[in-house]
Amino acid sequence: MANSIGNIFRFTIWGQSHAPAIGVTMEGLPAGIKIDQEKLQSFLDRRRPGQNKYSTPRKESDTAEFIAGLNPDGLTCGSPVTAVIKNSNTKSSDYSELEYIPRPGHSDYPAMIRYGAGRDFAGGGQFSGRLTAPLCIAGGVCLQILEAMNIRISARAVMIGGKTEETAMLEAIENARAEGDSVGGIVECVIEGLPAGIGEPMFDGMESRIAQTVFGIPAVKGVEFGNGFGCAALRGSENNDAFSYNGGSVITKTNNHGGILGGITSSMPIVFRAAFKPTPSIAKEQDSININTAENVKLSVKGRHDPCIVLRAVPCVEAAAAAAVYDEILMAKASGFEAF
Amino acid sequence: MANSIGNIFRFTIWGQSHAPAIGVTMEGLPAGIKIDQEKLQSFLDRRRPGQNKYSTPRKESDTAEFIAGLNPDGLTCGSPVTAVIKNSNTKSSDYSELEYIPRPGHSDYPAMIRYGAGRDFAGGGQFSGRLTAPLCIAGGVCLQILEAMNIRISARAVMIGGKTEETAMLEAIENARAEGDSVGGIVECVIEGLPAGIGEPMFDGMESRIAQTVFGIPAVKGVEFGNGFGCAALRGSENNDAFSYNGGSVITKTNNHGGILGGITSSMPIVFRAAFKPTPSIAKEQDSININTAENVKLSVKGRHDPCIVLRAVPCVEAAAAAAVYDEILMAKASGFEAF
Amino acid sequence: MANSIGNIFRFTIWGQSHAPAIGVTMEGLPAGIKIDQEKLQSFLDRRRPGQNKYSTPRKESDTAEFIAGLNPDGLTCGSPVTAVIKNSNTKSSDYSELEYIPRPGHSDYPAMIRYGAGRDFAGGGQFSGRLTAPLCIAGGVCLQILEAMNIRISARAVMIGGKTEETAMLEAIENARAEGDSVGGIVECVIEGLPAGIGEPMFDGMESRIAQTVFGIPAVKGVEFGNGFGCAALRGSENNDAFSYNGGSVITKTNNHGGILGGITSSMPIVFRAAFKPTPSIAKEQDSININTAENVKLSVKGRHDPCIVLRAVPCVEAAAAAAVYDEILMAKASGFEAF
Amino acid sequence: MANSIGNIFRFTIWGQSHAPAIGVTMEGLPAGIKIDQEKLQSFLDRRRPGQNKYSTPRKESDTAEFIAGLNPDGLTCGSPVTAVIKNSNTKSSDYSELEYIPRPGHSDYPAMIRYGAGRDFAGGGQFSGRLTAPLCIAGGVCLQILEAMNIRISARAVMIGGKTEETAMLEAIENARAEGDSVGGIVECVIEGLPAGIGEPMFDGMESRIAQTVFGIPAVKGVEFGNGFGCAALRGSENNDAFSYNGGSVITKTNNHGGILGGITSSMPIVFRAAFKPTPSIAKEQDSININTAENVKLSVKGRHDPCIVLRAVPCVEAAAAAAVYDEILMAKASGFEAF
Repeated sequence: MANSIGNIFRFTIWGQSHAPAIGVTMEGLPAGIKIDQEKLQSFLDRRRPGQNKYSTPRKESDTAEFIAGLNPDGLTCGSPVTAVIKNSNTKSSDYSELEYIPRPGHSDYPAMIRYGAGRDFAGGGQFSGRLTAPLCIAGGVCLQILEAMNIRISARAVMIGGKTEETAMLEAIENARAEGDSVGGIVECVIEGLPAGIGEPMFDGMESRIAQTVFGIPAVKGVEFGNGFGCAALRGSENNDAFSYNGGSVITKTNNHGGILGGITSSMPIVFRAAFKPTPSIAKEQDSININTAENVKLSVKGRHDPCIVLRAVPCVEAAAAAAVYDEILMAKASGFEAF
Repeated sequence: MANSIGNIFRFTIWGQSHAPAIGVTMEGLPAGIKIDQEKLQSFLDRRRPGQNKYSTPRKESDTAEFIAGLNPDGLTCGSPVTAVIKNSNTKSSDYSELEYIPRPGHSDYPAMIRYGAGRDFAGGGQFSGRLTAPLCIAGGVCLQILEAMNIRISARAVMIGGKTEETAMLEAIENARAEGDSVGGIVECVIEGLPAGIGEPMFDGMESRIAQTVFGIPAVKGVEFGNGFGCAALRGSENNDAFSYNGGSVITKTNNHGGILGGITSSMPIVFRAAFKPTPSIAKEQDSININTAENVKLSVKGRHDPCIVLRAVPCVEAAAAAAVYDEILMAKASGFEAF
Repeated sequence: MANSIGNIFRFTIWGQSHAPAIGVTMEGLPAGIKIDQEKLQSFLDRRRPGQNKYSTPRKESDTAEFIAGLNPDGLTCGSPVTAVIKNSNTKSSDYSELEYIPRPGHSDYPAMIRYGAGRDFAGGGQFSGRLTAPLCIAGGVCLQILEAMNIRISARAVMIGGKTEETAMLEAIENARAEGDSVGGIVECVIEGLPAGIGEPMFDGMESRIAQTVFGIPAVKGVEFGNGFGCAALRGSENNDAFSYNGGSVITKTNNHGGILGGITSSMPIVFRAAFKPTPSIAKEQDSININTAENVKLSVKGRHDPCIVLRAVPCVEAAAAAAVYDEILMAKASGFEAF
Repeated sequence: MANSIGNIFRFTIWGQSHAPAIGVTMEGLPAGIKIDQEKLQSFLDRRRPGQNKYSTPRKESDTAEFIAGLNPDGLTCGSPVTAVIKNSNTKSSDYSELEYIPRPGHSDYPAMIRYGAGRDFAGGGQFSGRLTAPLCIAGGVCLQILEAMNIRISARAVMIGGKTEETAMLEAIENARAEGDSVGGIVECVIEGLPAGIGEPMFDGMESRIAQTVFGIPAVKGVEFGNGFGCAALRGSENNDAFSYNGGSVITKTNNHGGILGGITSSMPIVFRAAFKPTPSIAKEQDSININTAENVKLSVKGRHDPCIVLRAVPCVEAAAAAAVYDEILMAKASGFEAF
């Protein structure tokens, strides 16, 4: 069930870039929760395109409209909650060339093979980065619920185009844009306020579920927790985090484990990083094929594309983390563990 | 449901290190498949402890016994297949000290909090690396099925203790062992023979599902595909893989995407890496706490522990990948896509 | 996850009677399927209210609008398919009295307890019979797919108000309506064209899954297959259906088993019946309580209500059966069974 | 996933009649629960064969052995709980005739078609009534947990061979046995002590989930709640149950709704009935086919078979109900509803 995730808080993302709408249906939200729609919209606006020169000029208001699941007072009613975003600013003509010529680095080719005549290729169809907007609705709702539990999730870009300092990162984007190229980067996310004991021991472990959700964001090619790949050069005596009493509470003196041990939270902040590949759609000429004529061709991608999606991906990473964490909390509760 | 994974080929791992048995129950295997139990046992032997000086001296025959799901001819009968491994060589006394003193870097502390009086701490309980044996049974069965479809999965250690050359890696392990310490490392896995079109577009994408499964292996702290974290320093023009006709078939000239685009296979080999932290159980003295007396204490872990689990983890990574890939193939088939 | 059902073809129904919309999101439909929207609308019209004197005068056009999952050619694109029906003709004022006074026989009281302040009671909220419209969309799509496989599903009312003959059934409804009362009935459904071998041996058996789906229709209080409750008075020699060759194909001489043995189809027609209780909302004065004042009160339900929902339920039963059967076919296929 | 059921308390039944073992794996049990194994065994003994002249003479000790999921103190440890029953008294030779000749009324024919060469036909394989023993383990564990919450589940035979009085029911069985025949019957189950508000509004409604589970018991052909099929002859004014205050608590004056409204409990006892067909395996000569020779043949079933499984099915119905109800309670809790 590719577009759904979650055991108790379970949401399904649907829609395509140029369909009438995109949206999300959420199951498992408790009844009686007030969703602050204005605050949610502010969150959505962080990933919205067309806001600055670092992102695609496609302008979408991306307004989330709740069409089901709320009662007249705006409280969740215990039924699935469905929110839609209408697609307005679609320019399918930009894509006509791409029906048979797959963009290198993009999902075009696998989609051609997989969906055949059913494929909806305009605007990237179901593979469009636009589908992260409904992810941000689901995750944004979770962020509000988590915030009320004093759990805070915050992400930021820590590398773009090989640069780790803000000015250099923006410069890297601008340079790429100027040259019809793109750059990748790394987003780091920190989750604070989770008590110890949340998460499951194996495939629904905190790492498994965060990773599964974050890899659902287009362009993510790596996820690591705590020391991550750095562990491979360390010894246990360096990487282990010593436990200690800090007043009445248990802490670890360092946080190489990134807040998760055996799939379960330790009460230390969860720290993880996601690697994003450079946007595959670039103006620079590339080698590709035409699967209709079965010839090798040259391709220069037209249309409105981000030279770097890392900045817009920051709220998406927060959203993915929030959805995963909230479901873990509900699973822990369902299994009889009361931490709150 | 922490110990289960899969949409169509769905397996559940159960057991604890010192329970009567560990095992696995597999649903979704087609009827009429011959499982080569001898070959499976050879595969299991690759992760078995006590084989050489680089791993724990605990000796277990780790024989998989199929108690359900096969007919008298040894063919799958269409019912769930259950295999068990009896636990024989348990020395619980080694663990008595650990009831209240969590080992740094280990799941002990979260497990104490989460499971309370129910916790089974002997031998690490359900968090023991022994639970990767039933994973290898499930994955080993999948490997046989995939092999018959000409899909080959092969993993190897590419870094241990910061070293990338075989002699240096073994030396790093040996040095760590001699000093009562441990080392981490990286396993790289290659999956060849998958046609284009396998995988789902979002949370059941090939990356999502491989990552979720691989993070279920204890000690994994990072997973990356293709260029992975390396993407963050690249431009689109460097990272994109050009399509080209190679005779009648479509290839990419490079494989920076690691065989997956938009969650779906491109027909190029899938390449991914998993980072393993150093074994947390080390003889070296460490700082910890006693949650019974609420005091800070010193701890030196006794018992039989691997100075490095990376080598034994190699078949586990293959098993996790095989289970994820096989389920993806079945999902593609269920959705009407016929690639085989 | 209450509002979702299915293992491979999985759909989620959402919305409330007086929310902006009701709708359904379907996952697992193969790409490239043409949905005949006109034909689907004709199917939906069979359950639409306000068509004759036997049903509620509430008039809704109940037009299904596909907002996601179809490509510009109207083919399924492999992404979830979402269809909505806008709610237009809502008269919430009819319901203001019912906020604290539960209607006997209705879901009001459990809903008050379960959802508290979140409850959306106008028009029955998520418990409204209106929610069978999205069920009919999901089932209607399945009916089209099944029809193309030569599988035909057809239901009809076989008893209403204790009567089994058409004129008498309609008279029973008319009499009940005239007296401000309502009547229940039985719908029988026949599924023809399924080959032997479809269904699973236990909790996803054909009976289990049809029953689970049909009990999701409000007011259903019983489901039986073949001889059903009649079995309790029979001997094996009477109830067993003898196998026989009929030309080259295997039949049973009788069909007391209703086409299902061990949860799996026998190739004989599936025959099942669903019992519907009388519409609980009646004009006749009834005893109830006011949970706000904690007093016993008298209640006479105002508003637009069906004196009998059995006739409108007929397409709903077909829809439920179609969704269950189609998912069983996909499960059989996923498990390697090729019957088509 | 045919052999698994449950959203939070999820169990998988595995094994075949003549495999080394049958068993069950349960996920979602809270940690720290003491399972009274002696009491569980007494419960299992109620369905055990070979106890009196009314059931098959096959003797099995049917001892449940817990091999995973309990800690050394016998408490659930938070990991899946696996229990096995070894198969000992197997006489496969009784079945050799049945490889190609399907028994009328039995799953043989669909199983031949579905599983082909993989089919395990000895003793009925996975379709054997023996598989209800692991169901009774899972349900028996739930019964203990529910009992501690003051929820009591109790079933009894209310009709056998058309008779409703105990002596007459036993006589009907004895007569059938004497004539090489069998009889069906009805089991009624009552669930007391559930507060209002448990259950979900649609496909996971109390009726949907109890029905799905109960239809998983071989031979069940009908399930009805409260007035059930009797509703079809009633008017709303007769069938509706008036609400009333009884001291401080809300009751209904009658219980025609069987304790469930809109899929959710009303606090009145849940009452449901399950119809069982007569045991298909009878000694009397019947018409069948030989699928090997493609000829019509005569068949008289040898071996040890119950002339009536209704009495042994009573604890199975309690077990199925308990598993469904416990999962509903966990779902309600997971959705934020606190009734206990």
